[in-house]
Amino acid sequence: MRIRAFDDLVLRVLMLLNSPDAEGQMTTQAIAEGVATPYNHVSKAITGLRRLGLIESQRGRRGGVRLTDEGRRATVGAVLRALDDREDVPDCRSPKGDCVLLPSCGLRSSLRFAREAFYQELDGVLIRGVGQGPAAGPATLTLAPAAQRPAS
Amino acid sequence: MRIRAFDDLVLRVLMLLNSPDAEGQMTTQAIAEGVATPYNHVSKAITGLRRLGLIESQRGRRGGVRLTDEGRRATVGAVLRALDDREDVPDCRSPKGDCVLLPSCGLRSSLRFAREAFYQELDGVLIRGVGQGPAAGPATLTLAPAAQRPAS
Repeated sequence: MRIRAFDDLVLRVLMLLNSPDAEGQMTTQAIAEGVATPYNHVSKAITGLRRLGLIESQRGRRGGVRLTDEGRRATVGAVLRALDDREDVPDCRSPKGDCVLLPSCGLRSSLRFAREAFYQELDGVLIRGVGQGPAAGPATLTLAPAAQRPAS
Repeated sequence: MRIRAFDDLVLRVLMLLNSPDAEGQMTTQAIAEGVATPYNHVSKAITGLRRLGLIESQRGRRGGVRLTDEGRRATVGAVLRALDDREDVPDCRSPKGDCVLLPSCGLRSSLRFAREAFYQELDGVLIRGVGQGPAAGPATLTLAPAAQRPAS
């Protein structure tokens, strides 16, 4: 099982905005540098976060992106659940057609139970807290300059 | 979160070989038709399953693929664990470089706990059993002819 690259990016953008380094507001460019990810990808993540009501943005010279109250209280589980728009864990139904095993398949319900167990484990984990993991010093998010990470 | 398409295919090939329709042995071609997936993809899944000791194959005119004893006893959890070759759930470390949040990130360990909860939920689920889901009739796997499903 995997976390989608987009979901991973959304979580990292939220972690960054929840870090002391964010100082309330950041530009998309600064976020892109912070998470060392191309601007366009980060821009899509920001659109997604705005749609979920977790951030708000201000236009103009002093513009930027900042967390809403909901964004400050967000949990990893709630964010991943909100991004998961599919009924089934595997591709049982797709535009190409339904899986041939579908009529008598018990795998889907087993995987749904397992997915729920995965999310439940993360429902209590605050985004604000995960930047302060076991290896953290007093400055919780140590962001290396983007230059130290080759562009993806 | 997602199940990778390859893992999904491996599970479906195992479900098919565990079904009464398999009658002990099947050719790769028959499996590909059964799961309505291109031959090349199925061939890779079979290589993976052989490597895991879950199936064995016999060459020649009467050749084909059949389950080993281990393949008959396999659980969904054990198969997905065996296919999961990464330490981290997201892409923390990649050939392109480490994630910049890595030094003080608590997300990885939270996601590892959640992944473990996901697998534990599936450790007791026999592949042999999931073809006999709640919607199953007496013939547990009702495989529609591949022609009914547009080729992917």
